[in-house]
Amino acid sequence: MTVTEKLKFNKDGLMPAIVQDAESGEILMLAYMNREAFELTVKTGKTHFYSRSRKKLWCKGETSGNVQTVAAVYTDCDYDTILVKVAQKGAACHEGYQTCFHHLLDSGAGWKIVGEKAFDPDEVYGKQSKQEK
Amino acid sequence: MTVTEKLKFNKDGLMPAIVQDAESGEILMLAYMNREAFELTVKTGKTHFYSRSRKKLWCKGETSGNVQTVAAVYTDCDYDTILVKVAQKGAACHEGYQTCFHHLLDSGAGWKIVGEKAFDPDEVYGKQSKQEK
Repeated sequence: MTVTEKLKFNKDGLMPAIVQDAESGEILMLAYMNREAFELTVKTGKTHFYSRSRKKLWCKGETSGNVQTVAAVYTDCDYDTILVKVAQKGAACHEGYQTCFHHLLDSGAGWKIVGEKAFDPDEVYGKQSKQEK
Repeated sequence: MTVTEKLKFNKDGLMPAIVQDAESGEILMLAYMNREAFELTVKTGKTHFYSRSRKKLWCKGETSGNVQTVAAVYTDCDYDTILVKVAQKGAACHEGYQTCFHHLLDSGAGWKIVGEKAFDPDEVYGKQSKQEK
């Protein structure tokens, strides 16, 4: 059985993939992989995902240049989630933040934005700023 | 709008929730929350999830005692994934490992188990060892 065959994709053929910065330990994003995205990630050493909204494969950084170079790939006890440790070029979030997880729950103030923008998404993506996600 | 109302649960009413050790940065597990599980997590300060296989809410540690005390709750730019930073009592994985992500991809050997068991699941769960997941 190949490493891909061991994985349990869901009824839509997808699996959540957590992306973690290999050096800092910061969780950068979560996106979905289908079988092909997983295999491309392993083969090329750059993270690939399947976009549920655009219904196509994408390579993280294909528009922004902010690619993720794979350091290690893990799966969990149920073989139904992927964890990829990466070296992130630039910042991960298409909104310009280092991590997509920049909304912190504050009991008084609701979801509060934490962290500074590392880049201006309009400059990097132009009018496509919502597309690479 | 309440903090829960901002969240975008999927067509099954669920959202992936990544659990990270607040101190070490290690990713411990990924499970799913529905609205009620999210609200219970925030209210009680202990992680709660919705089990897709058992079709019920569960509190992590309800059988094993290995509860997760919430340190911080984040959501991402799309409000469709939760990140919970926790203090983990004992070990997270129902198989006895510190983290559920204990299968490392080794190009030569396939999925290789990394890490030592922190406890014997048969002693902790008895014959229920597959149930608390």
